[in-house]
Amino acid sequence: MKKINPSLAKGTRDFGPDEMKKRNYVFDIFKKTFSLFGFNSIETPSLENIEILNGKYGDEGDKLIFRILNSGEFLKKVKNINKKSSSELKSLISSKGLRYDLTVPLARFVSSNRENITLPFKRYQIQNVWRADRPQKGRFREFYQCDVDYIGTNSLVCEAEIIKLVYSIFKELNIDNIKIKLNNRKILTGLSEVYNFRDNFNQFCVLVDKIDKIGKDQFKVELQKLELPKEKNDELINILFFEGSNKNKLDFIKKTLSKSDIGIQGLNEIEQLLLLDDNFEFDLCLARGLSYYTSSIFEVISSKDNIGSLCGGGRYDDLTEVFGFKDISGIGISFGIERIIEVMNNRKLFPEKIISSDKVLISYLSEKFIKQSIDIATTLRKNNINVDLYSDNGKLKKQLQYANNNNITNVIIIGEDEIKSNIYTLKNMKIGTQEKLSIEKIISKLS
Amino acid sequence: MKKINPSLAKGTRDFGPDEMKKRNYVFDIFKKTFSLFGFNSIETPSLENIEILNGKYGDEGDKLIFRILNSGEFLKKVKNINKKSSSELKSLISSKGLRYDLTVPLARFVSSNRENITLPFKRYQIQNVWRADRPQKGRFREFYQCDVDYIGTNSLVCEAEIIKLVYSIFKELNIDNIKIKLNNRKILTGLSEVYNFRDNFNQFCVLVDKIDKIGKDQFKVELQKLELPKEKNDELINILFFEGSNKNKLDFIKKTLSKSDIGIQGLNEIEQLLLLDDNFEFDLCLARGLSYYTSSIFEVISSKDNIGSLCGGGRYDDLTEVFGFKDISGIGISFGIERIIEVMNNRKLFPEKIISSDKVLISYLSEKFIKQSIDIATTLRKNNINVDLYSDNGKLKKQLQYANNNNITNVIIIGEDEIKSNIYTLKNMKIGTQEKLSIEKIISKLS
Repeated sequence: MKKINPSLAKGTRDFGPDEMKKRNYVFDIFKKTFSLFGFNSIETPSLENIEILNGKYGDEGDKLIFRILNSGEFLKKVKNINKKSSSELKSLISSKGLRYDLTVPLARFVSSNRENITLPFKRYQIQNVWRADRPQKGRFREFYQCDVDYIGTNSLVCEAEIIKLVYSIFKELNIDNIKIKLNNRKILTGLSEVYNFRDNFNQFCVLVDKIDKIGKDQFKVELQKLELPKEKNDELINILFFEGSNKNKLDFIKKTLSKSDIGIQGLNEIEQLLLLDDNFEFDLCLARGLSYYTSSIFEVISSKDNIGSLCGGGRYDDLTEVFGFKDISGIGISFGIERIIEVMNNRKLFPEKIISSDKVLISYLSEKFIKQSIDIATTLRKNNINVDLYSDNGKLKKQLQYANNNNITNVIIIGEDEIKSNIYTLKNMKIGTQEKLSIEKIISKLS
Repeated sequence: MKKINPSLAKGTRDFGPDEMKKRNYVFDIFKKTFSLFGFNSIETPSLENIEILNGKYGDEGDKLIFRILNSGEFLKKVKNINKKSSSELKSLISSKGLRYDLTVPLARFVSSNRENITLPFKRYQIQNVWRADRPQKGRFREFYQCDVDYIGTNSLVCEAEIIKLVYSIFKELNIDNIKIKLNNRKILTGLSEVYNFRDNFNQFCVLVDKIDKIGKDQFKVELQKLELPKEKNDELINILFFEGSNKNKLDFIKKTLSKSDIGIQGLNEIEQLLLLDDNFEFDLCLARGLSYYTSSIFEVISSKDNIGSLCGGGRYDDLTEVFGFKDISGIGISFGIERIIEVMNNRKLFPEKIISSDKVLISYLSEKFIKQSIDIATTLRKNNINVDLYSDNGKLKKQLQYANNNNITNVIIIGEDEIKSNIYTLKNMKIGTQEKLSIEKIISKLS
């Protein structure tokens, strides 16, 4: 038999039992909190027709979509194949792609189910996405996204609820020192009108988004690419970096934006939101790159961890228009599970019950006792105790080694004496103690 | 803007909120029960290198693997492309495939992690698989598999525990009238030795597997293809269709199999298992097709529903040998989530709390009351009540319609009077009643 190397595909990961426990702990808190806030769970397919995905993520994004090769005789209808480039052939032999994010599938879902859903539609979705990116530390080709979105409403209730949701999630996860940075794209658009760089607006947003990485000084240098008169350039910098309370910042830019209708709209939205919930930092240096956001945008950072944003999102208009469903505003936020887990690992926030096994191992001194061991396992399970019944032929030493390797603290040992007396040995592997107890006592001890 | 049809890729499905609640209800019972039996959760990537998948599922299976097109200039190294067949080109331009089942990835996982895991290794895995099958009623191109497996043990404890696990799962799901059919491949192999059709053994197994579909009479006709002497043919049929208790069946074939070592082994295994747990039906007409099973095989059927098997599995040897990890026996069972949900729908087994929404809707008579509404939502959520705060501008009628459409029973209505008196209106949409209650009373009513 030819031996095959059991290696992983590049950029992918296995999650073993220890990692899964941590991940499920975080996912469960997400799901519970999303439900508390009235979001419904949906799932969309991993495969989408390629026209659903193409053109939604920019040219670079299109290249990063994993394409599925058509089945069967996929070359049958391809003519002059030797004259085709890879990119030309691609569209002829692959008509499906793997999900690249959860937002476009949501837009597709809402559009195709518009008859069956009532707006505003609130959903959460926790599923994998795939990107043919060059893998590097912390960047994978398959990873989970955890998104909540409102579709079909432009009420600021959504923004206020999302702020509350974010704090609830991080409180449940026990991650303190987090901060929500909030801005409004309309304000940035207003600045571009006032300072006359509308044509360079996207470039400006990308630049603003890079401030954290390149620093304030380098930002100032690069801002000169907008070719504003020096005086205006300085003014703009003063606005972006103005320090003060949310109220102070609003007051400071109000006059500047007074000539831009859209700018004033943005300011009003932030002012109204402050009346509902002021638990955010109005940050003019937040832009969220080139994406489809049109109004409120936000990011959550941890002031304790140098790790970038833990979640981000914003409001968008007409994401569903391309699917023929017009004038539908939405707002969403995406929780970065990988970074959140990294923060929790670094800060040692996973509870002990998640790190060590919650199972008890039943081990037996001879195969004669298997039937009785199964009966005891059944009794414990009826009392909601997770039981691993040792499932191989092996001496006690091997069984205890198995408990140790699996991080199992409690082992019940079953032998001749135990069965005769109905009193069993409960061994604690961590502190090395042994007790003789009835099943009832063992149950109350382990429950 | 060119309008794109928001259609699903062939053979795939969206799961909306109502379906997700049912699916999560079943998945949660799976996960809870798998944990009670000491199985650990793992996840493997959706993408595997193609050599991991190829050749594991037979020639037909290979064709049904979804292949991922290589990224970038995938044609760069392809020479004489116009002379290549689809199948030749496929292996040159696609080096990864989508997960086809959960068993081969488990074998790959165990082999690549052999240094870090302790045998016997018990895992459960609930993930999607993909097959480029022709879609038809009940058959999809993307579907979940829910597998539990033991790896690295040939102890009959596994079989006994799996029998208990199956009954626990179906009891939790409230599905009664299920039956575990059990056979042993070694017994079938024994029959093939005694009746001298070892060369046609696979053909025989496929045929036996079809009995349910084609019926006993047609089976007898087709069995003649084995070309046994008529007398032997009749004997074999008498054995396969012998009716009686497990014990009676064992006794009946014991003599026939006495000349086959492997047949006797199979009988012994069943006899020993009966001492541990006799809650199964020894069924000689169970073969489990052409698969990799080598010893115990089982299927779970519902005698109330004409729907085929709800789960199936068996013991296999050396699934990891191809990855260089030898002499590793394992046993597993796979729960068919789609059929289980179908049975539960047909029998109306989903609890009311799953079918109707567990949320309360907070609706407000004017936007003036949004802030107070948010505060009330926060209080309810702190008491673990799922709250949907109406998130758009709309009259009460529209808000109540939203509740109805979302199957929400309880609505809290907030207006001027309510805020002044701190007594709120709780409307029950199902029976049409309205009560005036304090928040505390509402909490205790909804908890």
